[in-house]
Amino acid sequence: MAGPDPALLSINAATVRAQWTLPRIIDGCARHGIRGIAPWRDQVADFGLEQTARLVKTHGLTVTGLCRGGFFTGKGWVEDNRRAIGEAHVLGAQCLVLVVGGLLPESKDLSLSRERIRDGIAVILPEARQAGVQLAIEPLHPMQAAERACINTLEQALDLCEELDGAAKGPSCALGVAVDVYHTWWDPKLEAQIRRAGKKRLLAYHICDWLVPTRDLLNDRGMMGDGVIDLPRIRSWMEGAGYAGFHEVEIFSELDWWKRSGDEVLATCKQRHRDT
Amino acid sequence: MAGPDPALLSINAATVRAQWTLPRIIDGCARHGIRGIAPWRDQVADFGLEQTARLVKTHGLTVTGLCRGGFFTGKGWVEDNRRAIGEAHVLGAQCLVLVVGGLLPESKDLSLSRERIRDGIAVILPEARQAGVQLAIEPLHPMQAAERACINTLEQALDLCEELDGAAKGPSCALGVAVDVYHTWWDPKLEAQIRRAGKKRLLAYHICDWLVPTRDLLNDRGMMGDGVIDLPRIRSWMEGAGYAGFHEVEIFSELDWWKRSGDEVLATCKQRHRDT
Repeated sequence: MAGPDPALLSINAATVRAQWTLPRIIDGCARHGIRGIAPWRDQVADFGLEQTARLVKTHGLTVTGLCRGGFFTGKGWVEDNRRAIGEAHVLGAQCLVLVVGGLLPESKDLSLSRERIRDGIAVILPEARQAGVQLAIEPLHPMQAAERACINTLEQALDLCEELDGAAKGPSCALGVAVDVYHTWWDPKLEAQIRRAGKKRLLAYHICDWLVPTRDLLNDRGMMGDGVIDLPRIRSWMEGAGYAGFHEVEIFSELDWWKRSGDEVLATCKQRHRDT
Repeated sequence: MAGPDPALLSINAATVRAQWTLPRIIDGCARHGIRGIAPWRDQVADFGLEQTARLVKTHGLTVTGLCRGGFFTGKGWVEDNRRAIGEAHVLGAQCLVLVVGGLLPESKDLSLSRERIRDGIAVILPEARQAGVQLAIEPLHPMQAAERACINTLEQALDLCEELDGAAKGPSCALGVAVDVYHTWWDPKLEAQIRRAGKKRLLAYHICDWLVPTRDLLNDRGMMGDGVIDLPRIRSWMEGAGYAGFHEVEIFSELDWWKRSGDEVLATCKQRHRDT
């Protein structure tokens, strides 16, 4: 199996958020020869939207995604997603990642929460289309269903894409998916669903690793190679489906990587990416 | 929605394993008017197989399952499952629960691990059939895929049942599933797959709750009512599919229920079961 093109490495800014502010992260990526970056909206807000767009442009980086829109089961989601779409447009982000939200407040009704999510995406989709911003539903791991996203498999996300954006014409679609290996590696239908998604709906590819044991449900992700995910195989499925975009490293790691220097983290990402 | 029949309450012996030995658990169930019990094999081994069978019989309890066979990706699984089948037979267990095992040692190959599991079940199935012991595949939560079971959805388990035991005749089948709400509550296909399973393949129903937040991937299960699982709804799906068996409470709780007195735990199980 051929190794990945090193030029396709992107860094999700959460990976070094404990060490660096966004401008330092952007500088760091440039310094390490990393060509893609995916910032979080709180980081962008701290540094300034226009400033972020300028600095990214200065360094010639690609914004592989903006994290995040979604949370359709919470309050104020219309305005918030509207702002997120505007920001993604200004940054020229390849997609706006949707973390769709967990159960409705005080509710145990998964079906109803999922209906609200579907309705929420339906509301913002025309605005995203108009702004030329692609929305990427990110199915999250089932262990995060209650609190963060009750879209939990790629199949479920693609069902939603087809329901809301079935007649997607042209070379791209308004609604697609972000495939994160951390959330999906266990899924017996992953290969088939990546194939089903195809080039047009595969808007982002996030990598890291699943540690054994995993000590925390949110912030114990591993560096590629340190866990059990068969990254070359999943990448081959993505490539087989026509995906030719960036490989975005997204590691939340309270216990390990957030404690190391930003430069060490980026250097390690580069090195490990070559092997995965 | 009608409440559950209190006579259908069963206690998985892990729920009070930190407090009591198996004979005390059996006595406790009898004392609290709980009619079902599901022991673990290490508990049975400690007390003695014949002794366990006798004490259970003395109290007129139903053994709603024996935990557990499986672990087909580890060593010595043929002999171990053979013994488990023999023990389930002696105890008159309604099923032998299969926790199928995680990734093969030193491997990241999920597909291969899943093939080995399928082959393993195929090997022990005729012996189980001969012994009159029903095997219940328990799909485990995807967060336990690496270490404990890489069968992670009810759909995947049922595919396997149909492949290996497709021509099941008569009123029951040799291979079915144990539906545990903790492992499956998040699944968008849960209702449909319970219906697909039907009365013949629904061999066990395990209840507890999903806590928010969950602090540990293994041992932080909640008591019914303390989390976000819509237990009456899932029970209604089980009943709709024809399941009329026990509701087995299985709670691993290092931080809470294992620290309380066994009598308090059993009394709480009884009370909460009525509402779920």
